[in-house]
Amino acid sequence: MAKEITNRSENYSQWYNDIVKKAGLADNSAVRGCMVIKPLGFAVWEHMKDALDQMFKDTGHVNAYFPLFIPKSFLSREAKHVEGFAKECAVVTHHRLKTSEDGKSVVVDPTAKLEEELIVRPTSETIIWNTYKDWIQSYRDLPLLINQWANVVRWEMRTRPFLRTAEFLWQEGHTAHSTQQEAIEEAHRIHEVYARFAEDYMAMPVIKGHKTANERFAGAEDTLTIEALMQDGKALQAGTSHFLGQNFAKAFDVKFLNSQNKEEFVWATSWGVSTRLIGGLIMTHSDDEGLVLPPKLAPTKVVIVPIPKPSTEIDEVVDRIQKELQAKGITVLYDRDETKRTGFKFAEHEMKGTPVRLGVGMRDLAKGQVEVARRDTKEKTSVALDGISEYVAQLLEDIQSNLFNRAKAFRSEHTTHVNHFDDFKEAIESKGGFVSAHWDGTTETELKIKELTKATIRCIPVNNEQESGKCVLTGNPSSQRVLFAKAY
Amino acid sequence: MAKEITNRSENYSQWYNDIVKKAGLADNSAVRGCMVIKPLGFAVWEHMKDALDQMFKDTGHVNAYFPLFIPKSFLSREAKHVEGFAKECAVVTHHRLKTSEDGKSVVVDPTAKLEEELIVRPTSETIIWNTYKDWIQSYRDLPLLINQWANVVRWEMRTRPFLRTAEFLWQEGHTAHSTQQEAIEEAHRIHEVYARFAEDYMAMPVIKGHKTANERFAGAEDTLTIEALMQDGKALQAGTSHFLGQNFAKAFDVKFLNSQNKEEFVWATSWGVSTRLIGGLIMTHSDDEGLVLPPKLAPTKVVIVPIPKPSTEIDEVVDRIQKELQAKGITVLYDRDETKRTGFKFAEHEMKGTPVRLGVGMRDLAKGQVEVARRDTKEKTSVALDGISEYVAQLLEDIQSNLFNRAKAFRSEHTTHVNHFDDFKEAIESKGGFVSAHWDGTTETELKIKELTKATIRCIPVNNEQESGKCVLTGNPSSQRVLFAKAY
Repeated sequence: MAKEITNRSENYSQWYNDIVKKAGLADNSAVRGCMVIKPLGFAVWEHMKDALDQMFKDTGHVNAYFPLFIPKSFLSREAKHVEGFAKECAVVTHHRLKTSEDGKSVVVDPTAKLEEELIVRPTSETIIWNTYKDWIQSYRDLPLLINQWANVVRWEMRTRPFLRTAEFLWQEGHTAHSTQQEAIEEAHRIHEVYARFAEDYMAMPVIKGHKTANERFAGAEDTLTIEALMQDGKALQAGTSHFLGQNFAKAFDVKFLNSQNKEEFVWATSWGVSTRLIGGLIMTHSDDEGLVLPPKLAPTKVVIVPIPKPSTEIDEVVDRIQKELQAKGITVLYDRDETKRTGFKFAEHEMKGTPVRLGVGMRDLAKGQVEVARRDTKEKTSVALDGISEYVAQLLEDIQSNLFNRAKAFRSEHTTHVNHFDDFKEAIESKGGFVSAHWDGTTETELKIKELTKATIRCIPVNNEQESGKCVLTGNPSSQRVLFAKAY
Repeated sequence: MAKEITNRSENYSQWYNDIVKKAGLADNSAVRGCMVIKPLGFAVWEHMKDALDQMFKDTGHVNAYFPLFIPKSFLSREAKHVEGFAKECAVVTHHRLKTSEDGKSVVVDPTAKLEEELIVRPTSETIIWNTYKDWIQSYRDLPLLINQWANVVRWEMRTRPFLRTAEFLWQEGHTAHSTQQEAIEEAHRIHEVYARFAEDYMAMPVIKGHKTANERFAGAEDTLTIEALMQDGKALQAGTSHFLGQNFAKAFDVKFLNSQNKEEFVWATSWGVSTRLIGGLIMTHSDDEGLVLPPKLAPTKVVIVPIPKPSTEIDEVVDRIQKELQAKGITVLYDRDETKRTGFKFAEHEMKGTPVRLGVGMRDLAKGQVEVARRDTKEKTSVALDGISEYVAQLLEDIQSNLFNRAKAFRSEHTTHVNHFDDFKEAIESKGGFVSAHWDGTTETELKIKELTKATIRCIPVNNEQESGKCVLTGNPSSQRVLFAKAY
């Protein structure tokens, strides 16, 4: 495996595509905008899924599964929702094919037209709230804390693997509550879970905040977001948690009898993260040699390479190391393949982002040592064979925190406070990153700034410091700074 | 929860639907033929998925994810495949909706018609083999041992929850090999995995066998099946593993250079089990009181009910029992709900199939005992509190094997050897179950028998005893018996 990826400094976007392809994370498919998630990419997703699923279960949620299809009429029930969502989607109109007249191909059978078209779910609020109507009668049926792992489809015009694809995998939580307060708390609880997952597992620091009214989810009263900063200075919305008020309950007529036997509409939240997180993971840590994976999400945490090739003595030592590491729950691969040169293997495992590489050769073994290379800094050290598994276990923890700290330092360096619009433009244009500035709170100003600079308000941070100032564009009074950035 | 389910003897089909609904496994949805899998049903599926996934990984397989959509033209590439599959499926023809003229609803945007229609995958051989074309060049790229967990859609006319739904969840393995022998071995290896899973986890005995040519998967050269027997005497095809020969490789032009540098077509297998297994699970073990779950797949293995209601003393004892059970990895629920009567709780947990119920009351506690009820036999015993967790752990194992043995005994009683067509008809009509009979090996006879009796050949058992005899219908010579049954 030669160095086949574009440098970040040269062409960041091409670098990203190269990593996805060369590390074996995903491939294009024959269907426009749909990707194939390859084994390494899917294994990373499985690790994300397992960790998140446990966090959801620990906070009292259960999983269920709702239909892939949504009757077209459902989408127009919630007025704002249809406005925001119903446009670009996959529409099923027929349910049968038949053999063509020449017998060589298949054609759509025109007699098998559906009475009402079905939409491949772009998100499931409508079909789920239509179901909740049957499940909720009394306050005793609440709260309903349900999550679904599923595929969804949004017919995006411009797609990029993981970041924006027509079909993607995600989880969507849909909860129902008897009080406004409880629903708001739920939205915040999940927001916190997302932030913890991003930082503790992905080693990706995030800013927690509220979306502006203009950037809210279609149908939400409040959208909480976690925003991460990529190495090219652009922000990535990494997960959102919505307080939906009673909007969907009203649209689908979901009422309950409260403990005073009075009928009320149910309060709702919804929340989701998707395979987009893999895009965020790549762009937070990876480098010009390839993918860099934080140990907690790396399917293979340690690779062992025999130098220069396997032998009985080396195999024996490796076998011992493998068993010690496995006993500590550390996944390890012994790359015994004799058809590949050592240098090729080094490059290949660097490309695939394996956090730690052990080189085991006779010269080192004679000194009771093995060579340890860490993927994040590319440092190599000779380490005593005795106690190697403890060393590696500690090193994996160090790599996990180093990646987080490095990304956090990068974010600090790329967060600029500005008070004048010229400085604002300059920061967005040349330095990139987050720009903290006063904003007068109007959608008009928000859109004007976007038009002039392509920067959007990423969020109003939670527990934001209150500080009186003047809007960076209009000079109108403002009580707090908000975070702007160009974004994916 | 009153006794609200129909007796099996009265109306088996209604009994099944009642169990699905009252135990909270699944619900109908607003989309014809698509079900909602409720939390209990989905938790059972998660347990199945986890166990199977580990078995696949232990046999060298990795997971990946391929697109939901298949270009229509792909389906007609493999001639037999299109014949068997392309008929009833969901066809996506457009990619956009727009607001209707009156502004009140959404309509399909006629300008957003796809150039080529997309089919929602009914199974993924075509899209996957189109992808493998890019992944396989040399014998070094083989074998490719990939599995996918996914939703698929087949537009069935008559649907029943879990057993036959338009959308269902499944796994589909798709492997590529350099030799015929290796592919055949793979198909058998997975067949074995399926049988082991059915028997060890589901406690559902299965017959392993080959499908006849007529019952083979569309595009396969050999289809291996596991066949289970339901309590109404009908068979259920529970999982299939296909040796596909080089059919898909030829259809999608997937060749590799062998070690002699010669080009060859790749050999293939595919294999799958689905949420249909949940239907099999229900119909193998459940009774007129509700669902019966084998402990290994029960999301909650033990429920503790305070008698008649919680108190400080009872809570303390329960807390100790819970901790002991959890330390043994046994999931346990303490049903403290004071709004429900004890009898109601008993009935509810019986309905939901929880394998073991512990009743904790002051009278028993005074004697140092708790009441233990097992779901499978409904026996109750008083058991010493001291050592209760060991007792429960052993009881769960006993229940698991009792369920298996009970189902196996039922199958023995419902397997009939016949030599004359009158006896054949009589066995199928009145007794049900498997009928072992000689068959002359022709599709014509097979279809004629189906027409006359509704029974189909479920399988030709693997390692079938060779025995010369005469076909039960035609009297033509036959070298072995095959298994017939009416089937789901």
